[in-house]
This record gives sequence, C-alpha cells and structure tokens, in this order.
Amino acid sequence: MKEMSVYEVLNRKRRGAPLEPHEIETFVDRYTRGEIPDYQMSALLMAIAINGMTAQEMATLTQAMLRSGEQWHLRNQYDFICDKHSTGGIGDKISLVLSPWVAACGIKIGMLSGRGLGHTGGTLDKLEAIPGFNARLSRKEFDGAIAEAGCVISTSTEGIAPADRKIYALRDVTGTVESLPLITASIMSKKLAMGASALILDVKTGSGAFMRLYQDSKALAQSLIAAAEGSGTKVEALITDMDRPLGVAAGNANEIVETIEVLKGKGPSDVLDITRVQAVRLLVMSGRYDEASAGKKLDETLRSGAALEQTRKWIAAQKGDARIVDDYSRLPQPSKTIEVKAPRSGYISHIDTYEAGMFIVDLGAGRKKADDVIDFAAGVMFDRRTGDEVKAGETIARIQLGKRGGDELVTRFLSFVQFADAPPAPRPLVHEHLT
Amino acid sequence: MKEMSVYEVLNRKRRGAPLEPHEIETFVDRYTRGEIPDYQMSALLMAIAINGMTAQEMATLTQAMLRSGEQWHLRNQYDFICDKHSTGGIGDKISLVLSPWVAACGIKIGMLSGRGLGHTGGTLDKLEAIPGFNARLSRKEFDGAIAEAGCVISTSTEGIAPADRKIYALRDVTGTVESLPLITASIMSKKLAMGASALILDVKTGSGAFMRLYQDSKALAQSLIAAAEGSGTKVEALITDMDRPLGVAAGNANEIVETIEVLKGKGPSDVLDITRVQAVRLLVMSGRYDEASAGKKLDETLRSGAALEQTRKWIAAQKGDARIVDDYSRLPQPSKTIEVKAPRSGYISHIDTYEAGMFIVDLGAGRKKADDVIDFAAGVMFDRRTGDEVKAGETIARIQLGKRGGDELVTRFLSFVQFADAPPAPRPLVHEHLT
Repeated sequence: MKEMSVYEVLNRKRRGAPLEPHEIETFVDRYTRGEIPDYQMSALLMAIAINGMTAQEMATLTQAMLRSGEQWHLRNQYDFICDKHSTGGIGDKISLVLSPWVAACGIKIGMLSGRGLGHTGGTLDKLEAIPGFNARLSRKEFDGAIAEAGCVISTSTEGIAPADRKIYALRDVTGTVESLPLITASIMSKKLAMGASALILDVKTGSGAFMRLYQDSKALAQSLIAAAEGSGTKVEALITDMDRPLGVAAGNANEIVETIEVLKGKGPSDVLDITRVQAVRLLVMSGRYDEASAGKKLDETLRSGAALEQTRKWIAAQKGDARIVDDYSRLPQPSKTIEVKAPRSGYISHIDTYEAGMFIVDLGAGRKKADDVIDFAAGVMFDRRTGDEVKAGETIARIQLGKRGGDELVTRFLSFVQFADAPPAPRPLVHEHLT
Repeated sequence: MKEMSVYEVLNRKRRGAPLEPHEIETFVDRYTRGEIPDYQMSALLMAIAINGMTAQEMATLTQAMLRSGEQWHLRNQYDFICDKHSTGGIGDKISLVLSPWVAACGIKIGMLSGRGLGHTGGTLDKLEAIPGFNARLSRKEFDGAIAEAGCVISTSTEGIAPADRKIYALRDVTGTVESLPLITASIMSKKLAMGASALILDVKTGSGAFMRLYQDSKALAQSLIAAAEGSGTKVEALITDMDRPLGVAAGNANEIVETIEVLKGKGPSDVLDITRVQAVRLLVMSGRYDEASAGKKLDETLRSGAALEQTRKWIAAQKGDARIVDDYSRLPQPSKTIEVKAPRSGYISHIDTYEAGMFIVDLGAGRKKADDVIDFAAGVMFDRRTGDEVKAGETIARIQLGKRGGDELVTRFLSFVQFADAPPAPRPLVHEHLT
C-alpha cells in the first residue's frame, strides 16, 4: 500500500481538491482497523459533506467501504437473485409487499435491510412486530430462507461493510448525514457487498423523504446508479412520491396488517401501485419476463392467493408466527385509539410528512437514538389522506397508542395537517424511472 | 445557559449558516470541560475552516475561548503595559530585541509567547538557548520580572485560555490550522486574556510566512484588530516582510547572538529597522511619546548602552546567565560549521523561506512534533542574502550543526536558493500599518 499522509488528505479535502484513490482506500482501511481516530475521520467527513466528491472519488470510497468486510457475491451463487433498497419514508411497507410477491413469480429476492432512525420507520422493526420473527439471520439462515420461501429480509450481518457501520455511527453524531457522496457510499457499499444480480432503488422525494427536493432526489438516484457501474449488479431507480404518507397505516404492527391486506388485494391503491411498478422492473431485469408478461404474472399471483401463500411461507421461514396472516389479533394491539376529527370542512391539502414521521417516532414507533426500544403497537391510521374531501367533525385519523401519550396528541396531529377549500394539485406516485 | 443542540450546530455550520452566540459559547465551554468529544469539535472546526465565520461569530468565539480560563487584566494592574505578537517567521528575533529596548525607554512590556512548531522558530526556544533561562513563569514570577527588568517573556500558563490549548492541539491533527477565524480566535483569546494596555501585531507576509499572500496577511491583520474591538486593549498591526529570512542568523543560540549584536548597535539593519518601527508604535500608544520623541529615545537608549544594560537585567530576572551578553562562548556552540559556496556569480534573486525554515527544523533547531527536543546550537547563518551580489565560490551561508547532519546538506541548501544575472525587485520591510 502506498504511503498516505492523514495531514495531507485532510488539508487537501478542506481546500476542495480531490483525493487520490490510494488515499481514500488507506484512510478507510486504517480507520476501520482503529488506527485513525474518530476525530480525524469526522474532520474528513465534514470536509466531504461540504466540498463534495468527484464521481471517481465516490466510486473509490464505495469500493473501499465494501472491501472492508465480507463480499457475498450472491449473483454467482444463484441463477438470478434481486435486491431492493428504499431511501425511507412514512408508511413505507413496499419491501414487505414486494418480497413475497416477487418470490411468488419465481424470482428470488433477498434484502439486507435497516432499522428505523429519525423520522422514517425501518423495515426490520415492522417485521419484528410479528411474534417470533427472526430478522437477525446468519449467512446460512439467509440462504435457508431463500431455499424455503424464495425471499428473505434480514439485518446486515457484522461481516458486511464494517467500515460503513463505523462511519455511519460517526456521521450520525457529527452533522454529516446529509451528504450525497457519503449517502451513496453508505448505501451502495452494503448493496454491492451482497452482490445481487439486480437491484431496484426506490428513491423517495417530498416532505417526508430524506431528500425533500426533486432535484436532490434525482441527483441521489443518479449517484447511486453511477456508484454501481462495473460492479456486476444491474441497477435501476424509481423516484417515488413521499410528500404524503404511503398507504393508510404508519407504525409497525399496523403496517404489517396493511401489508397483508395489500397481498389479499384489499390494501390501499398507492401501496399496491408503487410495489407493482418495482416488481415489474425486477421481473423484467431477470430476463424471464417482459413488461406485459411481468404485469400479468403479478396480477395472477395476487388474485390466486399465491402471493399470500408465499407470505405465510416467508414468515414461517424466518420463524415468525404465520397465523398473523389470517388473524391480526396475534399482532401487538394498541392500548387505546384516539380519533382525530376534521376541524373544518374542505380538502386535506397537505400533510407535512416529516412532522408526521416525528409524531409517530414520539408515539414510540420509531427511534431518536439507536438504542431506543420500539413500541410495535403504536402508530397512526391516516383514514383521510392528502387530496381527500372531509366534513367538519368527521374522523380523519386514528392515533394508536402503545405505552405512552394521550388526548393532547390531537392538537399536535392537526398542526401538521393543512386544510383548504379546493383539492391540492395532484402529484404522481412514480415521478421518474432511471436506468 | 440556553440549551444548545450539538446536532443543530454541526448541521447549521455544515450548511454555511451562522451560529448564535450562545451556541458558540456553550460548544466551547462544554468541549473544554470534556463534555463534547474531540470528534464533534473536529467536525465543527472543519466546517468553520471551510465555511468561515462572520465577524460577530469570530468575536464570540474569541471571547468564549478567553473566558475558558484566567483573565489577568494587566492593564488594570499597571499604568501602562504593552504586548506584542508575531505570526512567526524565519530568523524572527524581533520580540527579543524589542522587549529590553522598550523597557529601557521606561515602558513596561510583557509577552506570553509560544514555542516553535512547523517551519517557524519559537521565541521561547531561542530564549531557552541561554543557560539557566526560565521561560515557564508563574503569574507571580511574571510580575516579579516586570518589577525587576520592566520586561518579561514567558510561556502561556496553564490557566490562560485552556480552550485554545485544547482546540489548537486538535486543529494541528485535523487539517484545520489554516483558517482565518480559528487563527484569529486562537491568537486573540490568549492576548485578550492577558489584557495588556496596548498590543502591536507583526503580521508576516511572503514565502516564509504563515500567510504567504499579501491579501491573506492583510485579512488576518484586519481580523485580529476586529476581534479586539471593545476589549480595552488598543491594537495596531504592521504587515512586515517574510519573503526572506530576517537578519543573518536563523536557529536558536545564533539568534540570541544576533539579538545582542543588534542591541549593541552592530546587528543587521533589517532586524533593527523592523524592531524600531514596532517599538515606536508601542511608545506612541503609551501616550508618553509622539513619533519623533519615541524615535529619539529609542536611538538614545541604543547608543548609550541602556538597552543592552536592560537586556542583562532581563536575562538575570528570568534566571538566565547574563554573562552571555559579553561572552557568546557561554551559549551552546555548533559541533561543526559547513560553508555553502555560491555555485555561480550573479545575484541571489530569491530564498524560498518556507523551505529554509524546514531545512533549519531538520537540523534540529525546530519541531515537527510538539515533543521534539530542540538542538539549540543548530542553525544557519545567511551571510549573503536576497538581493546580494555574489561571486562563484564565495561563501554565501554557514550551516551550523548540532548533533545531526553532514556535508550532504549543501545540496539541499542550494535547492531553495535562486540565482540570477540581475538583482530582484526590492520589497519593503514594512508593507503596511493598520490601526
């Protein structure tokens, strides 16, 4: 390894000049091994967050982070296996619907997913609302679940991109989370370490998204696709709407219920539609379907109950109680439900989805700190949604309480919901498809 | 104290938005008390180094750092006491000449000075070349020296601006040394904590200066003056040349010799001239002299030997061997002297003064790390200087060795000296006077 001067690297990045590949590689490697202290890495992260990185630097950073741990090369082990990543949102249960549905079409899908932190929920937290569900799988258990159910969602193991885990924890406490190159390297180092055949990225945009502005969401999507170049994993991205909660349910147990409802063909159409678009892309990327046959197969598996049956298999494969599919009372139940009434007649013109997310976190359904404990029963049902016409006094939402909170929550809830005399301009569910 | 969110502060400064006074104060206070870890402070320092600070933020930072420790309020204790600070250079012995000379004119002068680190030498290191000299004075000893000799130079005590000591050590290892607001707060927090009646700032400019470019030197001078506003200490700045070594001697013991020579009226004229300009300003700032009477008094004290006598008193007051004034052989002597000959006839058109400084550090006369031990005997005598006409084969410099080095040094020495057929354009010694 060529020599690298920490002093030089920090000074150069402070001035905005690009770093050499061997400098990035050595810095990440030495930091991961504990040879570079946190205070030097945090200075570098801040310099990157402010001054940015070239595409070349970003690709090198991604590679350095993924090489810090195991590489699974799943695409060599399976004929075709796909993966999906969402940048996160409120009520985002797409992964939960997508996995068994795609598996029911004969396409293997495996995800290493995350827990919720900040205003967005986490896929693993939702799954852990299912009694017995094991989201902490070993590599062997991961393969076992795929063999049994054709799909799996697990937490990232210790062995995958340890550099990312260490860097992410530092970013979280040094104000360097919002950074295109750092976000890109964090996401893609884990995805490329798993090494699926194809990956669909669901990049959210709007008030509840990590990237609120459309141009930022698009830049992130492009950056993520660019970082995968030459990796062997086919990557496509969809920019989807997160200016309103997705579906009706936002929380953990209530999102599991909504997931099952969608798979029974009875769920909210926005969840169904966004999942279907992503599933079509994955089926097409497998080379075994074209757009038309993919759509047809997906509709068929939903109608026939095959997708629902796959869901039972999947939950069982990860040691969860599959009876919840037919008996929602087996899931954690709210201690109390508070109804929120419309204060006036008119239209719901906007729900500040970030504020809604923080509201749900404060109910106990999410985390402000990494070691906060999730209250699975807590959540919100958005019975009336953005664009809906409402009458004064009508129930527009139900706040489901777990262990904390009370009637004072209604005032706070109404603070992030806007009403108007006319309906808001419609927003598309899927804004753009990037390949 | 109002609440302060570290997360908010770091995110805001990353985006380039200004911080509130209470945020800066609390951050510095909590960092100094060990409640904020190094990795969060280094992220803030990098954000400040890249995004800068407003004049208001910089003044608040300076105040927060000075309030982290003792405040001496010297101007309340003495009728008039002055202070001087140099941004540092090669062969910069101005403080050593200035102190006894100003004291000989009946004006008290006290400085808390620093040690050398990087390419520039340190005033305290030079003084410690004098056998017995005590540069680590308590507050009581500091006052005692002023009572005995009218002048004193000591290291900053533990009690002065502990925040600065802690922050400086962190900047040194996180690539955040070069930052106008951080440099300003570091210098002025210590100076204002001492609280002299008047302060003259010697801001260097050119290849051997911390700020090489004239506009950067001027910006620093203006920033330092602005940070003192409302403090009660009168501040003026002189921008002086550091595009060539100051005087003939650069090292430690050899600079003590040159200091005494100047005070005997026999030293190099550039050292004399720059010191005299600063001494005149301090005498005038005392209100007891005007420009003309100050100059007259200074010339008189030099001619009469009063300044030299004050030097003996001063060295004795700090427990040094004052006999060195009349017997240079009592100072550390080089083990060997290597002569550097001119490789061609012509003019010395430029000496890269930064490179000269690093050369001298490598001889052992300076420090690369804070715990390096100084070799007092090592140094360089620049017998022929920038602008001088030389003949091929003539001795242009003498390299004085202490414990290390040999003849191979001649090649390196000549690598930073340029020759030409014509003399270089002259540069003024004093570029500008700012008040």
